[in-house]
Amino acid sequence: MTTSQDALKVQVHHSSDDRPPSPCGFVIFGAAGDLTHRKLLPALFDLFRAQRLPKNFFILGVSRDSWTDERFRKEAKASIKEFGNTAVSKDFLSRLYYRSSDGTTSGFKELAIALHALEKRHKTGGNVLFYLAVPPSAFGDIASQLHQQGLIYPAGHTEAWSRVVFEKPFGRDLESANALNAELHRFLREENIYRIDHYLGKETVQNILMFRFANTILEPLWNRNYIDHIQIMAYETLGVEHRAGYYEKAGALRDMFQNHMFQLLTLCAMEPPAHFTADQYLDEKAQVLLSLRPVAQNQLDNFVVRGQYAKGTIGRKKVPGYRQEPEVDRKSQTETFVAMKLFIDNWRWHGVPFYLRSGKRLISQGTEILVQFKQIPHSIFASFRHQQFASNILCFRIQPDEGISFRFEAKQPGPEINLASINFNFDYKTTFHTKLMGAYERLLLDCMHGDRTLFIREDIVDLSWKFITPILKHWEKSKRPVALYPAGSWGPKEAMALIHGDGRKWRSYVPNYNIPTDGYGKEL
Amino acid sequence: MTTSQDALKVQVHHSSDDRPPSPCGFVIFGAAGDLTHRKLLPALFDLFRAQRLPKNFFILGVSRDSWTDERFRKEAKASIKEFGNTAVSKDFLSRLYYRSSDGTTSGFKELAIALHALEKRHKTGGNVLFYLAVPPSAFGDIASQLHQQGLIYPAGHTEAWSRVVFEKPFGRDLESANALNAELHRFLREENIYRIDHYLGKETVQNILMFRFANTILEPLWNRNYIDHIQIMAYETLGVEHRAGYYEKAGALRDMFQNHMFQLLTLCAMEPPAHFTADQYLDEKAQVLLSLRPVAQNQLDNFVVRGQYAKGTIGRKKVPGYRQEPEVDRKSQTETFVAMKLFIDNWRWHGVPFYLRSGKRLISQGTEILVQFKQIPHSIFASFRHQQFASNILCFRIQPDEGISFRFEAKQPGPEINLASINFNFDYKTTFHTKLMGAYERLLLDCMHGDRTLFIREDIVDLSWKFITPILKHWEKSKRPVALYPAGSWGPKEAMALIHGDGRKWRSYVPNYNIPTDGYGKEL
Repeated sequence: MTTSQDALKVQVHHSSDDRPPSPCGFVIFGAAGDLTHRKLLPALFDLFRAQRLPKNFFILGVSRDSWTDERFRKEAKASIKEFGNTAVSKDFLSRLYYRSSDGTTSGFKELAIALHALEKRHKTGGNVLFYLAVPPSAFGDIASQLHQQGLIYPAGHTEAWSRVVFEKPFGRDLESANALNAELHRFLREENIYRIDHYLGKETVQNILMFRFANTILEPLWNRNYIDHIQIMAYETLGVEHRAGYYEKAGALRDMFQNHMFQLLTLCAMEPPAHFTADQYLDEKAQVLLSLRPVAQNQLDNFVVRGQYAKGTIGRKKVPGYRQEPEVDRKSQTETFVAMKLFIDNWRWHGVPFYLRSGKRLISQGTEILVQFKQIPHSIFASFRHQQFASNILCFRIQPDEGISFRFEAKQPGPEINLASINFNFDYKTTFHTKLMGAYERLLLDCMHGDRTLFIREDIVDLSWKFITPILKHWEKSKRPVALYPAGSWGPKEAMALIHGDGRKWRSYVPNYNIPTDGYGKEL
Repeated sequence: MTTSQDALKVQVHHSSDDRPPSPCGFVIFGAAGDLTHRKLLPALFDLFRAQRLPKNFFILGVSRDSWTDERFRKEAKASIKEFGNTAVSKDFLSRLYYRSSDGTTSGFKELAIALHALEKRHKTGGNVLFYLAVPPSAFGDIASQLHQQGLIYPAGHTEAWSRVVFEKPFGRDLESANALNAELHRFLREENIYRIDHYLGKETVQNILMFRFANTILEPLWNRNYIDHIQIMAYETLGVEHRAGYYEKAGALRDMFQNHMFQLLTLCAMEPPAHFTADQYLDEKAQVLLSLRPVAQNQLDNFVVRGQYAKGTIGRKKVPGYRQEPEVDRKSQTETFVAMKLFIDNWRWHGVPFYLRSGKRLISQGTEILVQFKQIPHSIFASFRHQQFASNILCFRIQPDEGISFRFEAKQPGPEINLASINFNFDYKTTFHTKLMGAYERLLLDCMHGDRTLFIREDIVDLSWKFITPILKHWEKSKRPVALYPAGSWGPKEAMALIHGDGRKWRSYVPNYNIPTDGYGKEL
């Protein structure tokens, strides 16, 4: 398939409105931090360059560091060049401001004064988006101070809006998440709160829903009658890197499952809402979590496996084990890998297992969702061909090389009755010849538009923790140590047993997604 | 998609037996003719080269021309070079023999003697395949003479087999086809008779069945609940060429529909047989034809349109109209184009129209089957996007560039809810990197193996003519003249009205099958 042919394949149906959002100011707490410089500033500049930001717009960076506007602009310029791979314009930089804040009430008073001055200068009419790129322990204080300074107005306020974006982690278990939500709700209404999960901003993640509900031929197949099981997988080759301090207290279950993996799960499993409005859509996602089959504590080890990477080799590079990483306890029981089996007890999914796995220092890097359909009920070719046919598989590749593959059986050329598994592939890059919008760009824009669809609503946080917390508690009490796996493998043997016991196997289209493998090379 | 990636996509399941057939002789009547030299000899040599022929094998050419073995070998050598695009081996040529025959009993006696001598020399054990590449008027005589000379033995004969292949046309209406079958059955059992339709030897045609019944996810969708309609189309840019003498008496309905088009129809519409054996499979094909809804004579013009090409332009070349072709009546009413709408009255297909069209001197060249699924029942995106989504389409491309395409709706990159129609493509050439076996090669091989699956059984000939004959009779009596269309168009306006009246349109992925068009460029 040549590139030019692929280009021709696409027929675009233009539709909804792509006007920029209304004028607003954008306040970043944690403006000197990593997230701001790696993600937020490059994303904001990309939006600016694509003329997707309002004309009346400014960015006010806030943190404890005693930077000046000039310093902030200089750092932003360097960050955008490094992480956005592009040169930044003066026009953009001139909209950047900085105020250091000590977190005290008087500090916030000054901040409010500075903010109002900028609102006047840039004619943003009081609309303001606060982005909390700070540790969760600071969430409550900042919300309280913003409230005290009168900077939070309820949604539907006629003159202006204020919205607050919270980065993960949002709590560390059910209790702490509930406490955090309760604290925030003293100062903010749920409509002002935007809990971000950047996975939901990825094109392919959004496409799961569109693909499911814009095509006639998927929905009739999308249920227990035709689907054998679903695998949701996120692999990293990286280790804990510079995040050991946080990670030691978090682990893979909190870091990946409570948010990203469960979000992917809900997108695969949800019923179609009647209309694609934020609340109807989020209601349906909540329904999935409400339908998760609870696992009795004495059964948990049969459904959830935790692992931790030991030293090993990735590519040709020798890498240390997790316990050898800086800032990690030499006897750490923190999991860097989790595999689990879930059931959703509703009419659509009863009896269909969902297998989830995610880990660090694995053999490959990527995120994918794999829908394996059932075997054909009867082979009319049985007298020619005794083996079973391969099952149909639909694969959503979320990264890298975002796209979709369908595996079919087709006749192999020749006079014999031979069939071959062929993949029908679609990938975003080849098809659309366009740089995909980054997840942060998309979500920041949605927030400015006041669209909460791709953010996490309180009840969804709550329901995710409700399922996750008993597992965390079980592990805390458990005498069974975390299972070690060599770096550069597919995880611990226990994770294989989890799925092999059901007569199935992990599959991965990553790293070369064109080769469906069992995910274990020659081991199987 | 690069070629090397495509190669990796294929996983082949090897299975059935590909041993060469048992020793046999191959006797061609009409050995000096066009079909023998364009198709049969190149196909036989390709099989020989691929070591698919038995080691004990010879070819005996027969016709009225007084050629010698040497002359036949010389002509065969030239033909294989010209039409097979390859140099022929001496080993192959040395197996070629020739006998002229005047068609008399004494001529056939001599032929039998010559044949038996060759059978001895080549140790073929009496197995013999007779290929009748002669006009249908000679079928009966040759069958009778072969019978008289004791060259036809019933199938299941313990010592040797004899099989007779008949080229189309097989009758010119129900009555003549029945008469021909009756005559042949005086000398031949149905098991000895191989009525050939070379369309059935094409890889993609065979793949329709495999694709349908080796994949879980097609069969649940393959019915009136999810399919809106099916289009079956065969286009030619060529005119009548050197076949005017035959064509004037035949026309497109006999030439294309009774055989090729109806065969494609049965493959799309048939129920799965329990086992893929010739008779179970042919029984299911017959069931489709038995289920065709008869059309009352006074309604025929609303279901069947006939056209004839007038002068026009194809590419940049001006071409004459059909009536200006040599050997064509200046007032000819012979149709060179037919479009029809059919219904299959059974539980699977009730209410689903099948639109068929085929013609000469059209704008494009190709054969394809297009399955259009219904619209989604409800759009959850309706508030963002008022137009309907494009329907899913499955397209089997039979020629050129044999392959399969699936049209889906997917999210277009960007922050808006835009969807784009994307095609998932699979084509044989790119995927398998192999020259496809020619239709004649495949069918000759099947015949040597005694596999009648891809040949036309008597009842199927009969059922096809039962549907076609009333249309032929109606046209004979009709005062409505054949509709003229300019060469280089998509056929007469009446053919558009046929489908537009149902709120649908012809679609074609040909010539650039990557662009789904309405088949009429800017006209619509």
